[in-house]
Parts: sequence; C-alpha cells; structure tokens
Amino acid sequence: MNEKIQVGVLGATGSVGQKFVDLLSNHPWFEIAAVAASERSAGKTYGEACRWMLPAPLPERIAGMRVQTCEPPLPCKVVFSGLDSSIAGEVESHFAASGTFVISNSKNHRWDPAVPLLVPEINADHLQLIKHQATHGAIITNPNCSTTGLVLALKPLLDRFGVEAIHVVTMQALSGAGYPGVASLDIIDNVIPFISGEEEKVETEPLKIFGRYENGAIVNCDLRISAQCNRVAVFDGHTECVSVKLKQPASEDEMIRAWNEFSAEPQQLLLPMAPEKPLRYRTESDAPQPRLHRNLDKGMSVIIGRLRKCALLDYKFVLLSHNTIRGAAGGAILNAEMIVKKGLLPLP
Amino acid sequence: MNEKIQVGVLGATGSVGQKFVDLLSNHPWFEIAAVAASERSAGKTYGEACRWMLPAPLPERIAGMRVQTCEPPLPCKVVFSGLDSSIAGEVESHFAASGTFVISNSKNHRWDPAVPLLVPEINADHLQLIKHQATHGAIITNPNCSTTGLVLALKPLLDRFGVEAIHVVTMQALSGAGYPGVASLDIIDNVIPFISGEEEKVETEPLKIFGRYENGAIVNCDLRISAQCNRVAVFDGHTECVSVKLKQPASEDEMIRAWNEFSAEPQQLLLPMAPEKPLRYRTESDAPQPRLHRNLDKGMSVIIGRLRKCALLDYKFVLLSHNTIRGAAGGAILNAEMIVKKGLLPLP
Amino acid sequence: MNEKIQVGVLGATGSVGQKFVDLLSNHPWFEIAAVAASERSAGKTYGEACRWMLPAPLPERIAGMRVQTCEPPLPCKVVFSGLDSSIAGEVESHFAASGTFVISNSKNHRWDPAVPLLVPEINADHLQLIKHQATHGAIITNPNCSTTGLVLALKPLLDRFGVEAIHVVTMQALSGAGYPGVASLDIIDNVIPFISGEEEKVETEPLKIFGRYENGAIVNCDLRISAQCNRVAVFDGHTECVSVKLKQPASEDEMIRAWNEFSAEPQQLLLPMAPEKPLRYRTESDAPQPRLHRNLDKGMSVIIGRLRKCALLDYKFVLLSHNTIRGAAGGAILNAEMIVKKGLLPLP
Amino acid sequence: MNEKIQVGVLGATGSVGQKFVDLLSNHPWFEIAAVAASERSAGKTYGEACRWMLPAPLPERIAGMRVQTCEPPLPCKVVFSGLDSSIAGEVESHFAASGTFVISNSKNHRWDPAVPLLVPEINADHLQLIKHQATHGAIITNPNCSTTGLVLALKPLLDRFGVEAIHVVTMQALSGAGYPGVASLDIIDNVIPFISGEEEKVETEPLKIFGRYENGAIVNCDLRISAQCNRVAVFDGHTECVSVKLKQPASEDEMIRAWNEFSAEPQQLLLPMAPEKPLRYRTESDAPQPRLHRNLDKGMSVIIGRLRKCALLDYKFVLLSHNTIRGAAGGAILNAEMIVKKGLLPLP
Repeated sequence: MNEKIQVGVLGATGSVGQKFVDLLSNHPWFEIAAVAASERSAGKTYGEACRWMLPAPLPERIAGMRVQTCEPPLPCKVVFSGLDSSIAGEVESHFAASGTFVISNSKNHRWDPAVPLLVPEINADHLQLIKHQATHGAIITNPNCSTTGLVLALKPLLDRFGVEAIHVVTMQALSGAGYPGVASLDIIDNVIPFISGEEEKVETEPLKIFGRYENGAIVNCDLRISAQCNRVAVFDGHTECVSVKLKQPASEDEMIRAWNEFSAEPQQLLLPMAPEKPLRYRTESDAPQPRLHRNLDKGMSVIIGRLRKCALLDYKFVLLSHNTIRGAAGGAILNAEMIVKKGLLPLP
Repeated sequence: MNEKIQVGVLGATGSVGQKFVDLLSNHPWFEIAAVAASERSAGKTYGEACRWMLPAPLPERIAGMRVQTCEPPLPCKVVFSGLDSSIAGEVESHFAASGTFVISNSKNHRWDPAVPLLVPEINADHLQLIKHQATHGAIITNPNCSTTGLVLALKPLLDRFGVEAIHVVTMQALSGAGYPGVASLDIIDNVIPFISGEEEKVETEPLKIFGRYENGAIVNCDLRISAQCNRVAVFDGHTECVSVKLKQPASEDEMIRAWNEFSAEPQQLLLPMAPEKPLRYRTESDAPQPRLHRNLDKGMSVIIGRLRKCALLDYKFVLLSHNTIRGAAGGAILNAEMIVKKGLLPLP
Repeated sequence: MNEKIQVGVLGATGSVGQKFVDLLSNHPWFEIAAVAASERSAGKTYGEACRWMLPAPLPERIAGMRVQTCEPPLPCKVVFSGLDSSIAGEVESHFAASGTFVISNSKNHRWDPAVPLLVPEINADHLQLIKHQATHGAIITNPNCSTTGLVLALKPLLDRFGVEAIHVVTMQALSGAGYPGVASLDIIDNVIPFISGEEEKVETEPLKIFGRYENGAIVNCDLRISAQCNRVAVFDGHTECVSVKLKQPASEDEMIRAWNEFSAEPQQLLLPMAPEKPLRYRTESDAPQPRLHRNLDKGMSVIIGRLRKCALLDYKFVLLSHNTIRGAAGGAILNAEMIVKKGLLPLP
Repeated sequence: MNEKIQVGVLGATGSVGQKFVDLLSNHPWFEIAAVAASERSAGKTYGEACRWMLPAPLPERIAGMRVQTCEPPLPCKVVFSGLDSSIAGEVESHFAASGTFVISNSKNHRWDPAVPLLVPEINADHLQLIKHQATHGAIITNPNCSTTGLVLALKPLLDRFGVEAIHVVTMQALSGAGYPGVASLDIIDNVIPFISGEEEKVETEPLKIFGRYENGAIVNCDLRISAQCNRVAVFDGHTECVSVKLKQPASEDEMIRAWNEFSAEPQQLLLPMAPEKPLRYRTESDAPQPRLHRNLDKGMSVIIGRLRKCALLDYKFVLLSHNTIRGAAGGAILNAEMIVKKGLLPLP
C-alpha cells in the first residue's frame, strides 16, 4: 500500500473532483494523499466541506481528510485537477512550476504548444511534448467531454479510410455543466440548444489531438468539423449524431469492423482504467442510449450505433460517451496511467 | 352559429383527435357535429370514451356527444382525421369516396399523386390536385410533424437564395408518439436516437411540398436532405438543428430578414388559425427552447434562432415547431380553412 | 386607462416578480408604473435586466421600462413584493413607512401582529388589522404557497363540520424554489424529502389565517397540523396528500358538496382574479394532477380529488394548487383587489 | 458449478423477470437452468425474446438460452416468479402442485393461509406454514414493493417500543409499474396521486407479516395503517413519508439506535443477498433520496432519515427502499436463500 503513488485532487469538492475521488479511491497504482479546494472549504474535513453527489458512498478515509488550499506543495508528485476554468490556468501553472505533474481536466492549457491534449488510445506519442515544458513538473490535459467520444469513434476511421469532414450534433448530459450547473426550471420538459464555448471546442480540439508531433510541436490535422451542441435532461452520458465524409470508400461492414477491432496502447499495456474495447458497435435499431449504455466498461467505452448512409456526407451514426468518466475524470486517470507506464513520472 | 360548417373528427379519442377537439371547439367557422372512434368507444359519450389529456378543459358540449364509428356517412361534409396509420388509409378513402372532404394528419395518402401534401404558406397551389382525385370528396394531407417546421423555415430561403442541401438533426417531443406512446422507463434520464420511419419522412416529404404543380401532378423539387431523428424528454415541441447550403450567397442579416418578413396567403387571407408571422427569429443566445417558445402565436409559428456559419455547409440554425399544433391538428385546420377560403368546399 | 391604479413590482426580475408582471400586464384595475430590482439590474431596461422565463411573451411596454432600485418613493401607491426574504423585511417596512401599500409574497412580516396573513376567501375581516400598523402605508401578506391550497380546502370543512387535526404530505413544484432554485442534478430521477422552513410554515400559518380578529389582534385558531414537505420534478403545481379529523361526522357527499358549493366574498364581489369556484372536486380516480389541472380557472382554483376514509383520522384526500399563481403572485393580486374593493386604499 | 441449485425464472422477459436474471446470473448458490415466458416468446432465445432494459449487460449464457413456456416441469426444483398477476395465480399453483418451490413476487397467493408472506429479517418463522400447503412443492411470497421498506423500518420499533398506528404517504418509482407501465406523457412534469390497489396492500400486508404463527396459521397483528400512494418521475426507489405512534415512549436517539443496530437471521446466516445492515439511518438534513441512496448495499438496505416529532402521532421520518431489488427480485432471492439455509428445500 505504501508503494502506491501519492496523488492529490485539486477542486476536490466539485463535481469532477468528486468523480476523481470516487475513481481513485480503489485505484491499484494511486493513493489519494491530499484533497484541495477553495479557501472556503480549506480546514474542514472533506466530508464536511463536500456535498457528496455520487451514488457510490464517499470512502471513509477520504471523508476524514483535511481539505487543503490549492497551493503547492502538497504531499504528492501528481495532482488531478478538476478546477473551474476561472482559476485552473494559474493554479495549474503554479503546481507545474513547483515540480508537480498536473493531470488536468480543465480547458485552460489545452492549447499551450507544449501541453499534450491527450487521449491515450489516439496520441500517446504527444507525451513527448512535455519535455518542452519549461517547468520542473508538467501539465497534461484531456479534451472537452464532447470531443473525447467523437475523436475515439473517428480514430479507426481516420486510420483505415481517412476522414475529410464531420458534422456533429450533440445532446449533452447535465453533469457536464458541473454543480449546481443547469437549473431544473431550465431543463425539465425542455432542450437548451446552446452550451457556451462548446461548439468551438468540438470543432478545434480534434485538430490538435489528431495532429502530428514534429520537432517538439504538434502540427494540427486537417479536418473540417461543424458542431451543434445541445443540453438535454439526461444525468450522465453525451449522445452525438455524427455524419462523416471519408477519404476512401468503405462499406458499413468495414466501418463496424474498424470500430469493433480497435485497440491501442492502453489496451496492450493493460492500464487499469483502460476499457477492454474502447469502441463497441451495437446492432439494436435504437442504440446507443445514455441510460442503458453509459456505464458499460465502467463508463470508459464509447458506444456506437445506427450506422447508415448519409444523403450529404457518406455515413451517419450515433455515439454515446460517459461525459464525467471517459470524458473527464476517468480519461484523466487513464492519462496518468499512461504517463506512469511510459516512465515519464519521476518516481521516488 | 347554425351557419358554421359542420365537421367531424375521426380518431377523436386519440392524442391528435383530442387536439382537434380542443382547437375546433371555439373555431369561428367550424362546428364539431360528430366525433368518431373505434368500435370500443362507439356508443359511449365522448367524455366517457376519452381519457382527456389536455390542460384545457374538455368542452362540455363535446363531452356529452355520442361517439360514432369511423364510417360514412357522418352528419358533416368535412372530417378531420387523427386516425392511426394502421387504419387511416382505408377509412379515409372510404369517406372521400362517399363525398366527404378528409383533412388528414395521417401518413397513408401523403404520396398519392392526386393528394396535396399541404402547408398553406408554401404550396396552396397544390390544391389544384384535388380535382384529379377520382372521388366525390377529397383527401388533403399535412406533412409529418418534423417536416412542417423544417419546410416553413426553408421556404423564404428557397425563394430568396435557393437551397441546395440540408442536414437536420431533430430532438422530438413525446406527444409526437401519441398515447400511451413512449414508456416513461424509456425516456426519463435518456435520449432515444431512433424514431421508426421518421428520417425517411423528413428526407422525402419536403421534395413534394416544394414540388411544382404541372399538368395535374407534382414534379418533386430537387434537394438533398439528410435527417437524424431523436426522441427526448420534452412534452411538446420539436427542436431541429439545421445546416443549410444555399445556391446564392446570403448574409446572416439577409437570412434573418427573409424569415421575419415571411408572410403568405394564409396571413393575407387572415385565416383564423394562421399566425400573424409564420416565422419568428429570436436573438437570444440560447433560443428557441420548447418550454419557452412552443406556444407563441398559439403554437402556429416556427421559432428560429442561433443562425451562424457552418464549417461544412453555409449556415446552421435551430428551429422549434409545436408538433401537435402546427405539426398536426393546427396545421390540418389551417389546411381546411384554406380550402374553405378558396371556395373548394361544396357549401350547402 | 389613466384611471387605473398605478402599481410597482419589487423584485421584478425574479421568479415571482415575473409572474407579477405577467398577471398585472393586462389587469383591468392595475397598471404597472414601476419595476424595481437589485442594484445590479437598476438602470437597465426590464427586458435587458430580466431573464424572462415564462411561456407568455414579455409585454413590450414593460420590457422597455427602466428598472429602478427597491427604494421609495416609486411613482405608485401600491407595490407588489416578490422580494427574496433575505431583504424583504427591511425593504417592505421602508415602503410602508413611506406611505405605500405593500402587497407582499414574502415570509418576513407574516407574523407581525398587525399584518394580515390574507386569503380573501377565508379571512378578509383580518384587513381590519392594518389600521393598527404604525405606518402611513401598510403591509399585507399572503401565506406560503403550500399553506394556501391547504387552508382553502379546509375552510368549508371548518365551517360546516369543524376540523380538529390535519396530516399533510406535500409534493412541491420546482418553481416554488425560485430561480435558479433547485439544481437539475438534484431532482432529475429524484425526490428531495426536505424543503427548508416549509413544514414549520404549513404547520403554523393556518393558525393565524383561521384566527379570530379580536380587539385589534388575531387570536390563533386551535388546530393540530403535522406536515411533511417534499420537492418533486414538477414545474408548477403543489400536490398535497391530506388526512383530516373532523369535529362532527360528515359523509363523503357532504364534504364534496361543502367544497363544490364554497364561494366567498371575492366571488360575490366579482374580483378580477377571483376564480368562479375557489374549490373544485374532481371525480376521476387519479385526479388531481399538476400537469392536467394546475391551470384550471387560470391557476386560481384549488382542485381536490380522491376523498376516502382514513384508517387513522377521518378522511383523506388529495389537493392541487398552482404555487406561483394562487400560492404567490395571483393570490397577492387577489389580496390587492380585495383591499381596493373594501375602500382601504387611499385613492388619489 | 454443477453443485449449484438449478432454478428457473417465470415471466423472465418482463421487468421483474429481467431483474431476477440480472441478480441470479452471478449468484453463488443458484444457477439459472430455465427461463420461461409467454407463448409469444417461447422458442426464441432469451436475447431475442427480451427487450433487455437494465444497464448491466445481459449475461451471454442467458441470452442464448431458449425461452420455455410457463408450464411444469422445468429442469429445476425452484422457480422465481415475476409473472403478471393476471396469470400468476394459476401458473404458480400448477408449479407447486408439480413439486416445485415457487418463490413468487406476485400478489396472488399472498393471502393464502398457508403461504408465508416473507421478509426474512422479520418473520422467518412463518416458513413453518409451508408444511401445511397441500402440494408437493410450495409457494413463498414476498410483499408489495411499498410494504417491504415500511415493515423493515418498523420492525425494530415494534420490538423495542411497540407500534400502535402508522400514517404513510408514498412517492413511488416508475419501475414499480413494470414495462411499458406508466406512459411518459402521464408523468413528465407530473405526479399521479393514485396507484391501483396499492394503498390496500400497504394497509393490510404488514398485518400478516407482523403476525404470529400459531397452530399452523398466522394470527394477524393489530396495527392501524393509513396509506396514500403516489407515482413520481423517479426511475427506481420508493420514498415513503411515515408518521408513527409508539406504544412506549422513545427518544429520537433510541429510535435511531434501534434502526442502526438492527440485525436479524439473514445477517447472522450471512445469506448472500442479505445486506450487512438492513437499515441505515442517515443524518443529512435532506436524506434519503432515491438517486443518491437506492443502490447502497446493492439495493438491499432500507435507508431512513429526517426523524423528528410529529404533531399528531409521535414521530415522523422518511424511508427509501429499492423497489425492484429489496422490494421485488432481491427480496425474493433472499427468501429463497433463507429456505435453502433452513434446509426446507429438498436437495437432490
């Protein structure tokens, strides 16, 4: 037990922070050594400071931990950041400068040239970037929750057939907005066809993720993406209606095979958070559905369904991805596992 | 009062039938003279036979009417049909053959060559078709509830700039599935990314609606449409995310002006169900929303918002249309009003 | 038009404030002359300052009005207060001191000895209290939204049979918590069995409302009430499961007759907001239901159903009351109408 | 593996049936040897016949099993019945007559004098009844889903202080109505204050459960219960607002201790489905809540909160119980485990 890697959680009382605590509390490699949050929470026990929102019970050991402020040093070399973007930029830089590895779910550093925007099944080689970070530590980010499912579903299509253009309309879950997030009066019996800043992220983040590492920098991939983002009355799980234009022809069977056969480094390395199959194509006429499929493979797989011809582009399909697991805390932990396995973490 | 046109409602106890009863019960031109439904209901009073689902109270006069079977003759020259498609085809033909004008909301006869698929703001001239129907009466249909909002929003764009291609993703309300329709266990905390037969309707019905009347037939319009249809936990009001490729360039201002200035024959004729403005563009960043905007203009306007550039086609926007009013019963009544005003109805 | 009574709305941008604006904008006696809100909103037009949440469109005249701060004098002798209880106490006192009639929906002054806790069908005689208020103006309050429906349903039972004890469990709508109020993550697929301070209000306010005016004060009524309050995923309309112990025996028929025959001063005076029948008993096995019945009589009636024997007390039944209309803004406007009709308002 | 007890599931494709399959598929003592359903499903594989509704994936071995009709003999000595009450009575009798132990979740035989209405933490001694059943096999039933949570919460109060009267108002989950069950149009933004037959069950079943086994029969307990049952938009988990009148005085602390210390035979025997603690009192001001607490202890514990004085009876509190696990399939499996452990099952 005392050989586990000590980690901290920044923004630990928030919605993503709680998910980090939940997923890390039984992790085979990591052990939570610090929970940090705002001044208002600091000094209280985590159990007092935190309005625990998850169905899984709050682990007792963590409940009793004293909340610290989000300032280095914390007693750990790795911190997971679920900080709000209003403060994440500065705090994460501060931790990195002080020698900490910051595994961030926030948007602030995603476009820093030397910061990997990492989805380990896709661009683990981007981790080379971190040696160009001018800090003792490093910052590694994961993409927006809507981007993650999309790029995973596209990866094998890109590899086998090439992808020229994407049209995506999302129906996103409430947990993506944090807590308290969306007011119930705004979403009961309603759809909100707007999420601030979201369409821009979905249209641009894939370009870096699918980019090429070259001479210490990422050369963005060339791909036209049009995104429309909506909020719906779903607790967890983003559903996305995708149309795709391929570079080379492919049959439906070939596409489905590309998805079902997809496996990458995290699978080969048997990383603890890695799903056995990152992509699963389902054949039911009405799959995937958030309530039925979001928790498959502990929320780490992307579920795809309804592949059919598109009258404008080549094909259309539906994908589902768990936004707070694969698209946030779970994805970030998988990133950290990859970093550990690659030997990038300076172990004691 | 006794000069009102006597009308019947077929399938009067169902979900669309109730909406017909609701909207017709205070109509200035029409008066309900008959309510007809299945054998099971026939003989009971409408109040007994019907599980009234609408917030507006069931009008007492109608509650006391005896339900008849769906067979001609009924004491009226016009019937509104909210029949289920499993029986609508035959029953409606039967009524038309017996000299009745059937204003149908069902899909069965939409593609009959001599049957108008009518949206009075768009293709009132298609009413010329009915003289080619080989019956004493006539059948006039309105489109699928998801088609109606879409074609109305496209009409002024087509007229001013031309439209080459459309990509549409719908988030459709539960009332579109009738009653009992979607099980609550299927939709609470969920999205269902499939509605049987819906995408086909949205992709094809606009071709006839925008078609050209020529020598007693409709020549379909040429327009590529790709549709993806989803069910969401909304009571009334279909939201649609649309991308459009125009034939001629247009600025955002020109498009918004095209929508806001749009007015057509139903407006000029001051038809009772016609909204003052069929299309309303809203400037809020997060409009339209079903709960906030579906009932504007008594549910007969299409509300549009979020016009912005599309990275693939030219523009994207969001529209909202009340599916059981403009998209079903209200649209059908507007059709009937147009027929009356055009003098096509053989009045006593 | 210029003979209408000029009124102001305090807290006009909030959830109750918007309802006041909505209900007052076509009122036959009152005309909105001022909208007041926090410093943050002051100076903006109401349309800019307010995130309008109601399906009915925001009236244009009001949208263009400049928002003022909540300080006297405003250009009106009557203000409707939808202020948050954190500030309502002081602000309302201030207005009353400056000669304004304050028709308040807030809890702060409900227990002031000289302030009527008014439900005009029940205790209009309590208006005598206001002459004992040591101000030029006056404060008149209406009860908590859950209390209102309950006391109205009890009133004819008290009058005809006497009531000894009440057990009530509420299932309350989200709009009762204001905006943003309840987070969607807290209520989708959930029930919250707690509303802060609510049970105390429901257990005590009826005692004053049913109290006896005697020598310038109210002698509370003697009645045992046990309340349990829950929040459910309903937009508008509080449902209450009531058990009642009567003082004299009554048959179910007698009770239903007591409800259906109930009529009081607001009905006899034909006050504009007064429902024709304050109480309506419905005979369906599963009535009342919020979505179906909350808007009957424009939200001003209390709907009752399911009367049956109780194994502990005498009878149990279910009632439904629109919380933001009868239970808040509509009830307050009815209070103001009663004050006007009684000649208590110093007219110009 | 081949020493596991072979069991069948009757009504296996239904909502409770699926839950049986889910919970039995990894059971340490039982192994599904047969799935049986209606004629319509018989002959298909379970995967084809069943619209699997649960988030946990359908086990592959079961998916491939051929569905049989609900007629004996099936290749097993024990069947779990999730049959609809319209047919359960006869089918279950038939199986019992043919020598099968029928563990039923249906209401039909609950009041048969020789059939135990079993909650193993409460009345395991009632199993003595089965020797009085005039069959080779036996029928054992579990109570209605709303009864189960209530009687468990009452049990330690009865034991320590005595209970004289109970007032309970339920807010019940949708899954309790089976599939398709409640129409979404009936429950979105709504409460239905009526569940057919439910109040009668809650008011009477506890009398038998708490009854005394005497000379081969159960003498019902004496306890006045008044129940009001409502359906709310919650997926799983029944919430109940309870008021209780005790026979002897008790402090809040004593009551909470009674709940938290409660443990019974299933706990002592370490039955696989038995929760470590059948009752858990939570101290948060707003607990229990279905979404947060229904899955604690795998859905087998009853969660209690908000204990406080009642102005009419002695105390009021809120309880939560998972209706398809503890209140249906899970409870039935626990019953079966108790029968096995007691040696009542004729093992091969």
